[in-house]
Amino acid sequence: MKRLLKGADVLAGENGGFRCLKNGYLGIDGDRIDYIGVAVPKDPYDEVRDMTGKLLLPGLINGHTHTGMSLLRGLGSDLPLDKWLFDTIFPVEDRLTDDDLRLGMELAMLEMLASGTTSFTDMYMGAGYCTPAILSAGMKANLCRPLQSFDPEEEPMTCRRMKEMLALYEDWNGAGEGRIRVDFSIHAEYTCTEKMVRAAAREAEKRGAGMHLHLSETESEQRACVEKYGMTPARWFDKLGAFDLRAYAAHGVWLTAEDRALLKERGVTVVHCPESNLKLGSGVADVPALIREGVAVALGTDGPASNNNLNLWEEMHLVSILHKGVRRDPTLLSPQTVLSMATVNGAKLQGREDTGVLAVGNKADIVAIDMDRPHLVPAIDPISNLVYSAQGADVVMTMVDGRILYENGEYLTLDRDRILFDARRAARRLLG
Amino acid sequence: MKRLLKGADVLAGENGGFRCLKNGYLGIDGDRIDYIGVAVPKDPYDEVRDMTGKLLLPGLINGHTHTGMSLLRGLGSDLPLDKWLFDTIFPVEDRLTDDDLRLGMELAMLEMLASGTTSFTDMYMGAGYCTPAILSAGMKANLCRPLQSFDPEEEPMTCRRMKEMLALYEDWNGAGEGRIRVDFSIHAEYTCTEKMVRAAAREAEKRGAGMHLHLSETESEQRACVEKYGMTPARWFDKLGAFDLRAYAAHGVWLTAEDRALLKERGVTVVHCPESNLKLGSGVADVPALIREGVAVALGTDGPASNNNLNLWEEMHLVSILHKGVRRDPTLLSPQTVLSMATVNGAKLQGREDTGVLAVGNKADIVAIDMDRPHLVPAIDPISNLVYSAQGADVVMTMVDGRILYENGEYLTLDRDRILFDARRAARRLLG
Repeated sequence: MKRLLKGADVLAGENGGFRCLKNGYLGIDGDRIDYIGVAVPKDPYDEVRDMTGKLLLPGLINGHTHTGMSLLRGLGSDLPLDKWLFDTIFPVEDRLTDDDLRLGMELAMLEMLASGTTSFTDMYMGAGYCTPAILSAGMKANLCRPLQSFDPEEEPMTCRRMKEMLALYEDWNGAGEGRIRVDFSIHAEYTCTEKMVRAAAREAEKRGAGMHLHLSETESEQRACVEKYGMTPARWFDKLGAFDLRAYAAHGVWLTAEDRALLKERGVTVVHCPESNLKLGSGVADVPALIREGVAVALGTDGPASNNNLNLWEEMHLVSILHKGVRRDPTLLSPQTVLSMATVNGAKLQGREDTGVLAVGNKADIVAIDMDRPHLVPAIDPISNLVYSAQGADVVMTMVDGRILYENGEYLTLDRDRILFDARRAARRLLG
Repeated sequence: MKRLLKGADVLAGENGGFRCLKNGYLGIDGDRIDYIGVAVPKDPYDEVRDMTGKLLLPGLINGHTHTGMSLLRGLGSDLPLDKWLFDTIFPVEDRLTDDDLRLGMELAMLEMLASGTTSFTDMYMGAGYCTPAILSAGMKANLCRPLQSFDPEEEPMTCRRMKEMLALYEDWNGAGEGRIRVDFSIHAEYTCTEKMVRAAAREAEKRGAGMHLHLSETESEQRACVEKYGMTPARWFDKLGAFDLRAYAAHGVWLTAEDRALLKERGVTVVHCPESNLKLGSGVADVPALIREGVAVALGTDGPASNNNLNLWEEMHLVSILHKGVRRDPTLLSPQTVLSMATVNGAKLQGREDTGVLAVGNKADIVAIDMDRPHLVPAIDPISNLVYSAQGADVVMTMVDGRILYENGEYLTLDRDRILFDARRAARRLLG
């Protein structure tokens, strides 16, 4: 099926940035974009949709989240980190069944689609059980089974988590015409042995998979690692081979200048999660330095229990002002840079080079914003309006691989009312 | 007319905080609340509205803004402060006509009503010309004509700005059954003479009006004042009598510990504007210290050209996480505290003690949130969901003095399409 979106402003990719074509045309053939321009395309289309007053941009990519935690939204807010995690979150997480995890995933997808996220990078339990739900919803996801190992004697290749990780890869990598990708994952330096990291890196490399990590989130993590190993977590992971592949690391709040140089050299993407880092009291990552020095930086919401939502518009707005204020320089992080973090840089970390940019030949992962809203008028600078003024609810259409999954409040692939009903019931049971 | 809202959860005021009554009743008689409870009220009501699935909270109060700047939204983003203000904003502001100012006010009201703001405290030109539009829209506002004087010889009582200020007060204070209040205002220490401050304080005190200031927004302002007068701006204003009345001061980023003690002693409210302070690179006010030491802190968006919107939900979310992150303490600023800043503390600075809290006898300034949205499920802690997870667009009803002004995307008192059309045309003219 060939579909033409006409009349919308189109944020087309150009020279590594974005250019706004006024009243443009965007043509889609199957799952790919086959035309972008201001002239009427010559080829015929089966369906023409009038998108006047809308702005089309690439689907947003959430670089780091834990979707299953959406059932725990708001649990234990404002506690110190250790009390929040050990006394509140972990005991409830222990009670999560596979069905809860799938439900948390479905709830998260409702929220992500309504705020224009087309693809997400998840790190949580039960990914295999959840995958059919993702396939049926039509979203893209990079999944993993995070590895942990506290026992230096534990044999990496025969432990339960590694078996689950390998099975996840075998069962699901590439499913849904590639919408599902499976990456490997080490939860963090402080939860893993050297042996396990080496094994995970080796197995990931064999398969051409990526590596998803938590890195330098808190000061105590950074300090304890230096005390234990005589090197920072970044250096430790690198030594063990974790950066020999497409690697991406969430947080990076406490990276040193040497760490930044290492990440640049090894092509590791840092996933900045500003809301979570602030809410948990972890600090503010030096994103301006990372960008200045050439490290790729993507954006993530982290889990909804430390945010407390999956709304990348809030992350974009926050990252665009936070560093200006903290470093006291209003010229830092332009709207173009911030939009790139939530789109093309996310695509890079996911290994999906044909997404993140609206360009002919790329996948039709497209979001439409209704620009006819008071807080987006006037549109003196549309990209500035997106980053500083828009909110998630301005999204009126979310399309993945040419298929509309959400439009004007309606979900085309998910049963909203059933999911909300079940999620409320599950939360009552979990906390009761 | 007596109207009963039934079935909603009600965030009722209790012991200076909020308590959530599940499936409650809120009765309104004319412009005031006459019942709150979980039992069916005995008195009859003319109209009963089913609000099941909604949460009722007090209308939000924007403690500091410059509404007329909404026509300049997005102008000169990401420039250094002096270039932004002197080369970009000021030249366009010079071209604003009275009609532009009224239009900017109307555009701002569309945005504020849609995000649950019922009352705002404005500092901008043309307040007198705009007031009929506010009265017709039905919102509440504390207005002023900010005074400036650079010439020590200028006679305060005969200068143009003071005349406008006095006329504004005479013409409009108390209009619309008190929905309009007029306060006095000194723009800032660095734009005013001592003589003018004394005169303004004296005239305001005579009338029982408040005093609206910019205070200690930037480091250079703070330093230059100490160099010029041998005292901080707060001490300087106090010496000149500006704190002898209901005074409120926007920003307070660079207040010293002595300044904080002074503001506490004099009962001055600080209006925290975190988005603007970050975006302009001014820094992060020490709000935890202000609150700990007993200073009242309200919330403001500042003007939409340095934000770039008038959405207090974003301010609430930001203030709830920013200080946790910057001070690295996740226990700072609970959701209850943050919600108080946007409601009851705003009411205090406006001198509207019968607003800001849902309680019997108070004005019916009420906002309804639709809690049946994926990002608000589950509602383990409703106040936490409001502050951390909600967005402005979750507002489905905004009521002022018992009158519904906005409901489910429709404006009952403002012509949305005409205002958006005119605002776009005006922006083209101003920037053309």
